[in-house]
Formats: sequence, structure tokens, C-alpha cells
Amino acid sequence: MGAGSWGTVFAKVLRDAGTEVTLWGRRPGTIESINERRENPDYLPGVELPPGIRATTDPAEALAGADIVALAVPSQTLRANLTVWAPLLPSDAALVSLMKGVELGTTRRMSEVIQEVADVPEERVAAVCGPNLAREIAAGQPGAAVAACSDEETARRIQAACMTPYFRIYTNPDVVGCELGGAVKNVIALCVGIAVGLGFGDSTRAMLMTRGLAEIARLGAALGADEHTFAGLAGMGDLIATCSSPLSRNRTFGENLGRGMTLEQVISVTKQTAEGVKSSEAVLELARKHSVEMPITELVAAVMHHGMSIAEAAALLMSRSPKPERYGV
Amino acid sequence: MGAGSWGTVFAKVLRDAGTEVTLWGRRPGTIESINERRENPDYLPGVELPPGIRATTDPAEALAGADIVALAVPSQTLRANLTVWAPLLPSDAALVSLMKGVELGTTRRMSEVIQEVADVPEERVAAVCGPNLAREIAAGQPGAAVAACSDEETARRIQAACMTPYFRIYTNPDVVGCELGGAVKNVIALCVGIAVGLGFGDSTRAMLMTRGLAEIARLGAALGADEHTFAGLAGMGDLIATCSSPLSRNRTFGENLGRGMTLEQVISVTKQTAEGVKSSEAVLELARKHSVEMPITELVAAVMHHGMSIAEAAALLMSRSPKPERYGV
Repeated sequence: MGAGSWGTVFAKVLRDAGTEVTLWGRRPGTIESINERRENPDYLPGVELPPGIRATTDPAEALAGADIVALAVPSQTLRANLTVWAPLLPSDAALVSLMKGVELGTTRRMSEVIQEVADVPEERVAAVCGPNLAREIAAGQPGAAVAACSDEETARRIQAACMTPYFRIYTNPDVVGCELGGAVKNVIALCVGIAVGLGFGDSTRAMLMTRGLAEIARLGAALGADEHTFAGLAGMGDLIATCSSPLSRNRTFGENLGRGMTLEQVISVTKQTAEGVKSSEAVLELARKHSVEMPITELVAAVMHHGMSIAEAAALLMSRSPKPERYGV
Repeated sequence: MGAGSWGTVFAKVLRDAGTEVTLWGRRPGTIESINERRENPDYLPGVELPPGIRATTDPAEALAGADIVALAVPSQTLRANLTVWAPLLPSDAALVSLMKGVELGTTRRMSEVIQEVADVPEERVAAVCGPNLAREIAAGQPGAAVAACSDEETARRIQAACMTPYFRIYTNPDVVGCELGGAVKNVIALCVGIAVGLGFGDSTRAMLMTRGLAEIARLGAALGADEHTFAGLAGMGDLIATCSSPLSRNRTFGENLGRGMTLEQVISVTKQTAEGVKSSEAVLELARKHSVEMPITELVAAVMHHGMSIAEAAALLMSRSPKPERYGV
């Protein structure tokens, strides 16, 4: 449900795995092009979709008889969309979130919103997360992700539906950890971007990713996640891909700041605020509620929202008291 | 002990932290230059060393009265060098390995060689490991490492001796895990290099690093390491830095293979065999001894030593049976 770039690529993966696929999209022009020319010109121009993907603008048609319903709408529209679709959902379907982020206002994770709105038990709700840049997976480059679900049977059903020679799916019972990784990584990517903009190299970047993951894991442990998840594809994997890709919006946003632009200049250049700018404060609120130290997130929030200079933030980060590597977990 | 690039940079870090430093090196010309011009022209041309580093070619002079003895000679020469130095070691000094790799023949880690040759208890032997590219730390770019020692007091002593505004040290009790991370990462870097050479992007690289770390952690767990260590600076951190840096010899070696050169061509171009080529077989032997599955290492070894084609290796890697993310730990 959703014919954006990742929704379309995931439909391709399912089809390449031999699964029957109906793709729902909002725009008639896009849907027509997918059905007639096997191309999504808005999000994946030039990528040839496999034969056999049926596309439709009718949610009832898309959902009828589905075993697996994969949701790939913009995070903040999930609640409204799913409220409309809920009566159309087959009663045994597994609902899979392909989305990242946290609902503003409620700070709920996507799978929580799904459970609540569709009124289904957690055993039927999963999240597929991992280091997947849509364009690369669309090109058939080797990739991997986790299907996270508290119910192993459901996770394996999803795994079987999307295993292809170029895309591997692992199962993981820890939904909280997998979704949290995707939500917090953008804050760390902003910080890595700043470091890149300041001219720092691979040592500094690797340090920030590693210590960034350590603070994500501390928060995760406080929220009931399994900290091992953060060393996996949805944690470390997604963090590396996001922090390494010059295509990442968050990294680029930070890079411009590091090069000396003001916040206003960066926003006017990028035409939009990067995800991590908003989420830094939400994540920090969560961290404070659970008394978790997140020094990188704290300084990113201070730079983005409270006028702290980058030089001051960097100095504060490096002058913290000496610590054991695994404190607070 | 050792005026190569990392030995010299570590001397700089210690001195910048306010610690008194004597640097031992083998070549009189290098030592004279460090004393007279504060520069190591062989390994760090253009880097100005801080005032107050005393350099000498006399091991007795370097070791006299030392609280901390940091060892930074080539891994395979450690045993011979330390055998000569052992009688000169102050009886209370902490011995710190700055080296990576495993001794060929014995498959001992560096700290094990130190304990054996210097005949000191493990409480006095430490390893400093992390994502540190010598040139970047020498330029004062922000970096971090762990001081790993079974004895917390010793680890803290080392931490205090090298904490500077640009270099942070964390303590970690898990020496096995920290040293293993540094030894195995080169095999994964070879594989990431091959992927880069084949034209694959950040999704594939992040997947290989993450699944590579998972197999290192599996081996580590079997050898008694704490698997959390692998999500830290000596594990994930060092792996990211090595796999990301275009300066990494192992990555470059793999890249040339991925571009279609034969093994012979790559070796003749690089003038030397990359570390990971040799260690892939040693690591695999260790893995088999402990019945640990290491699919990436296995295929790297098959390509490097048994004539398997890269295409065949890639196909085998991606067609393994579906699995939970954390099997075998």
C-alpha cells in the first residue's frame, strides 16, 4: 500500500520472489504507467519492474484476499490512511510496516499505530527494516533486511514471501529495537554530516557511528528492546548505510552546517528540514523520561534548536568524563 | 616501542595528554629527526610532533622507569623484539599492545604473546584498539579507542595517560573481543572491496559489514569474548573505518579483484599481499575448530586460495538458507 520509491521496490522484490503482488497507489497516472509500461516514472524512472505486478488506485481491490499487507505511506499519514483501510483488511493478513520514524504527538512507533488503528494483535504486525537504499535494491544490488515480529511464524511467512537471489531476509523477534534503530539513525547521520563538513575523515565518522549506536542501544534497553538488535541490520546496518551515503538528506543537511552555513541557509538550500532535525528533540524527550544519557543526540538538538555553535558542541562532546565503553546498559 | 606511523602518533597522543614520553625506534636517522626537527619523515612527513617527546635507539634508555610500555612493532616481529627487551622491562609497568593481527604458526593474539614472552600476569597486559587511521589522529581529528584489560585499574591508568581533547579512551575488560575485532576485520574489508569493485553501493556494503560483524561475534562468543564488544569501537568502529577508507590496503585489494583483475595481477599491482588474504585461512581454521559458521570468511578464503570465481562466491552467499538474524550466538 503505497507506490513511493520503497513501496514500489518492495513490490518488485516480492514479485521477483514469486509472490503475487497488487500495488496500491494514489495517483492514477503512476498506476497507469506501472500497469502499462512497467515503470514508476515519479519515483523510479528508468527501472523496469517485473511482469505480473498489478497496480490499482482502489484500496478494496488491492486488499481483497491479501495474505500480507505491506504499508509504505508517509509515516505521518499512516493513521489517517489506515483508518480508511481498516474495514477492508482480510482478517488473517499479516500487516507489515515498511515505514520509519515515530508518530509526532503520540511518539508511537509505526507498528504500534498499526496495531491500534487496525485493532489487530501484535502477532500479526511486523516491520521490515534494514540498510536498503531503494535505488540500489531496485537495480538488483545484493541487500538484506530483517522481518521483525513477536510471532516467529508470521516473521517466517514474510521471510518466505520476499527471499530472492539479491535480497535476503532474516527474522528477528525484537520489533521495538528494529523500529527504534530506523527512527534514531537520522540524528546520528546529521552529526556525521557535520563532521564530514568540518573536513574530518573516517576515524571521526566511525567513532560517531559507534558511539551513536551505543546511545541508541542505551535508549533501546530502557524501552525494552534487545540490545543485540542494534548490532544487526536494522541498527548498525541501517546506520552505516544512512551515514555513508552522500544521497542521505540528513547527512547532507549536517554537511552544509559543518561547512559553515547557518541553519537558515541550509534550510533554504535543501527546501525542507531533514527528518533528524525534528526527531532529535522527540528522541531526547524520550531519553530524559527514561534517564538515559544520549550525549550526541543532546548536542545535535542543542545545535538545531537552541543556537549552540558547532565548535562548542564538538568541544563538549570530546571533554566528557572518562568512561567504560559499556556504561548505562 | 616502535616509531612506525601508529607508534609515533600514539607517542604524540600521550604527550598531548601531558604524559612524559620516550619513543624507541630502530633507525638512527628517524630518531635524530624526531629529536631535532620534531618530525618522523619516514612515516608521518609534514606532521609536527609536540615538544617534549624524547626519541632514542636504545631500548634500555626507553624502558628505564616506564609506567606504561606501549608496543608498536610489526606483529610478526613482536616475539623476537620482546625477547630481547624482556629483561629491561620495569617490574610494575603496564604493557600495552598497539598491534593488530595474530601470530602466524601459533595463532596467538598479541597480548598473549606479550604475557608469554615477558612472563607477566594478564592484569598488567592491555590492548588499545579502535577506528584510528594514523594520519587522521595525527592531524588532531577527533577519535576514540578502547583500552582493554582484564584489570580495571590498569585500564584506567592507560585511559588517564592518553585522554586528550581530540582523543577519547574508553575502558573495556574484554581483551579477547577487542583483539579479535582487529584481526578479522581485514577479511571483511576484502569482501567489501570486492563489492565496491563490482559497482555495488551503500546497501550492499552495509549488509556485508553487518553480517561480517555477526560472524566475527559468533567466533568471538565461541572463544570466550563478550559479544557486546563487537558492537563497540574495536569491533564495529574499526570495521567501519577499515571498510570505508579508500586508503585501506585490504579494501583496495578487493576492489581490484572486483573490477576483474586476476589474483596475480592484483598482487603484482599492490606489490604485497593484503593482510586479510593470509588471515582468511587462519580465521577459518579457528572457526572450524570451534564449529562456527563464517560464510563470508569462507568464501573470501575460497576466492583467495582455492580459485573460486567471484560470481560463484556471490551467488553462494546470497542463496544460503533463510535464517533468524541472531543464529549461533
